[in-house]
Amino acid sequence: MYASIVKPTMLLDEGRVRANIARMAQKARTNQVRFRPHFKTHQSAQIGEWFRQEGVTAITVSSVDMARYFAAHGWQDITIAFPANVREIDKINQLAGQIRLHLLVESVAAVHYLEQRLTSPAAVWIEADAGSGRSGVGWDDPGTLHEVASAITSGRRLQLQGLLTHAGNTYAARTLETVAAIHTQTVTRLERMRSRLQEAGFLGLELSIGDTPACSMLEKLGDVDEMRPGNFVFYDLTQMVIGSCTAADIGFVVACPVVAVHSERRELVLYGGAVHLSKEMLPRPDGSAGYGAVVQLRAGGWSEPLAGAWLRSLSQEHGVVQATEEAWAAESSGLGAVAVGDLLGVIPVHSCLAADLLKHYVTLEGETLAMAAIPG
Amino acid sequence: MYASIVKPTMLLDEGRVRANIARMAQKARTNQVRFRPHFKTHQSAQIGEWFRQEGVTAITVSSVDMARYFAAHGWQDITIAFPANVREIDKINQLAGQIRLHLLVESVAAVHYLEQRLTSPAAVWIEADAGSGRSGVGWDDPGTLHEVASAITSGRRLQLQGLLTHAGNTYAARTLETVAAIHTQTVTRLERMRSRLQEAGFLGLELSIGDTPACSMLEKLGDVDEMRPGNFVFYDLTQMVIGSCTAADIGFVVACPVVAVHSERRELVLYGGAVHLSKEMLPRPDGSAGYGAVVQLRAGGWSEPLAGAWLRSLSQEHGVVQATEEAWAAESSGLGAVAVGDLLGVIPVHSCLAADLLKHYVTLEGETLAMAAIPG
Repeated sequence: MYASIVKPTMLLDEGRVRANIARMAQKARTNQVRFRPHFKTHQSAQIGEWFRQEGVTAITVSSVDMARYFAAHGWQDITIAFPANVREIDKINQLAGQIRLHLLVESVAAVHYLEQRLTSPAAVWIEADAGSGRSGVGWDDPGTLHEVASAITSGRRLQLQGLLTHAGNTYAARTLETVAAIHTQTVTRLERMRSRLQEAGFLGLELSIGDTPACSMLEKLGDVDEMRPGNFVFYDLTQMVIGSCTAADIGFVVACPVVAVHSERRELVLYGGAVHLSKEMLPRPDGSAGYGAVVQLRAGGWSEPLAGAWLRSLSQEHGVVQATEEAWAAESSGLGAVAVGDLLGVIPVHSCLAADLLKHYVTLEGETLAMAAIPG
Repeated sequence: MYASIVKPTMLLDEGRVRANIARMAQKARTNQVRFRPHFKTHQSAQIGEWFRQEGVTAITVSSVDMARYFAAHGWQDITIAFPANVREIDKINQLAGQIRLHLLVESVAAVHYLEQRLTSPAAVWIEADAGSGRSGVGWDDPGTLHEVASAITSGRRLQLQGLLTHAGNTYAARTLETVAAIHTQTVTRLERMRSRLQEAGFLGLELSIGDTPACSMLEKLGDVDEMRPGNFVFYDLTQMVIGSCTAADIGFVVACPVVAVHSERRELVLYGGAVHLSKEMLPRPDGSAGYGAVVQLRAGGWSEPLAGAWLRSLSQEHGVVQATEEAWAAESSGLGAVAVGDLLGVIPVHSCLAADLLKHYVTLEGETLAMAAIPG
C-alpha cells in the first residue's frame, strides 16, 4: 500500500479513529451530556458517518462554508462555533432555512444585525469567555451579558439556547491537575453567568463546553449540557504533551518521502513542509523549535514516536528531521539506515491544521477518504 | 468592491505587483543574469502572464505538481527547486517528455535512481548548501560534490547545468550589510565549488541563486548566471523587517471581516486564522508573538501598517488584533471606531504561505485571479 504514496499524505488508522470516537461518545453518555463533536478537525463526510454510527446527530463546525458542506451531506443540526460573521448573511440565511442552525453571538451589534437580516429562525448561543481571552462575553462582565441576552430575546428570529465556551486555556496545561482546575473554573464561571441570567428571568439556558483536553482527561465533566470536542478524533503531538492521549491513540501520521540524507549532521530532509504540516510549533524540552515527532511506517501501521528524533525546521516544502546519535544508530529503528526514496511518518503538532492542508486521507487499507473542498 | 468580500480574501494591488516584477526583471537585465522567478509564491497562471510580459520564459517551482500546472499553462522551461523526489518518477517522466525540465540533486543515490528510471533527458543542478544548512551538498564537502558530479556525467539522461543554492540564511538578516555579507559568502563558496569541479574537468557550469532579500537589496549580484527570487512578487512583513521592501511595495493584504470588538482590552477578533494566514510567526520587538500587521482598507487600496496594532494570536479561524491606546484612539485610523461587520486588512508574515492557503486573489478592480489547484 505504501508504494502508492508519492507525496505527503495523511495515513489514517481507521480502527484508532473509530475507537477515539466510541470512547468520547461513551464519555458523553456516562456524563449525560449531548455529544456535538467539532467536525473542523476532520472535515470529512465519510468520517462523519463513523460518528453517526455512534448515535451522533448534532455537530459543530468552524465556518459557514463548512456548515454548508456537512448540511449537503445530511447533517440537520449544526452549530457554527465562531462569532457570527454578519458579512456571510446570505449563506447563513440559506442554511437557516434548510437545517437547525445554531449561531454564536457575543455583542448586541451582531444580535441587531441578525434580527434585521435573518429570514428564518436560528438558535443562538451567547459565547462566553470563561478565562481563555479570545472571543466571547467576559465571565466578569455581567452588564454586557445582560444586554446581549435582552437583545436576543426582545427580537423574534433568534432563540436563546444558553452559554457556550471554548476553554482554549487548557492547551497550556501539562498535567491532569491543571486541566481539572481550569475545567472547574470554566464550569463555575459559566454557572455563575447562567445564574445571573436566570435571576434576570432568562430561563432554561444550557451550558456547552468543548476543549479536547478536559473532555479526554476528566471522567466527570460537571454540570454542563453539551460537549463539543473535535481534535480527539485524531489527537496529535500537542495533545500527547498535554496528556489527553497516548501515542497509541494518534489517528493519523503524515507519510513523507525522504529526499535527502545528511549523515554528517544526522539529518534527513523530508518532502513535507509548512504547506503540509502547518507551522504550528511546540517547543522542545530544551526550548528549541519542534514541528513534529517521527515514526517508522511498517505493515499495518506505524511505530511509537522515535526517541531522539524530531522535525527541527519547516520551510514551504522541506521538513528537516534531526536525530540524536542514539536515534541515528538504533538497531531496529535507526534513522541512519533510512535512504532517499523511503517514507517516514510525522505526528503533526496540530492535527486540525495538517488535515486542513492535506485535503484527503488514505486509510491503512488503502481507501481514500475525501474532505470538504471549502471555497477560498 | 469591498462589499462583495465576505470572508478572508487576498486583496491584490496589480499595479504594485507589476512594479515589483518589472523592478526585479530590470535588476536581472542590469546584472546580465537569467531571471527564472520562483512561482511558488503566487501559484497563479494569470500572474505568470505578467511575468511573460516582462520577457520571462524560464521559471522555478517547488513541487512536481506545481510544475505540471504551469506546464499546462504554456511554460516550457521549468526548474523544480527541491531535491528530486524519486517517488514521483512517473510524473517527472511525463514532464521531462513535454518540457525542458530542470531537477535538483544532492546525492549519488538520487542520481542513480534518475539515471535508471528517467525516460527522457532532463537538465540537472547540483543543489549546494552554501551555509543555510537545509538541503544541498555542503560547500565544505568537495568529496561528495565530486561524486555527485561524476555520477551525473557518467550517465546518459542527466545534463549537468551547474550549482544552485537558496541562501535562506539571509532571512535572519536585518540590515543591508548583513544581507550583503551573506550574499558575498554564498557566491564565494559557490565559485569555489565550481572551481573544484572545473579542475576535475566539469566545464561550463552555471551558478544559480535565489533569495528575495539579496536579489531585492543588492545592486550587484556578483558572478552568478541565474536568479530565482519568488517572494518579491508580493513581499510581506518578514521582508519589510529584513529591509527588502517598504510598506509601499506590499502586493496583497488579507481582507478579514471583524467579528468581535473588545474595547476594554483594545482587541478586535477577525475572521482570519491559521487556515488563512498560516502560523508563520515573527517575534515583535518586545519578544511577544506577531502574526501580521494591520491596515485599514480604503478606496483604491489600503493604508500604511497601523503603528501600535498587530495580530497577537491565531487559532484555526480566529485572529486577535491587539492595539495600543494610541492606535485605538487615533483620530483618522483609530481601531476603536471599527465595528462588527467591517473589514480590516492584514499584511501576512509570510505571503507564500498565506497565498497557498487562500486559493485565489481579488484585485482592487474586482477581478478574480485563479491559483493552481494542487491535488492533495
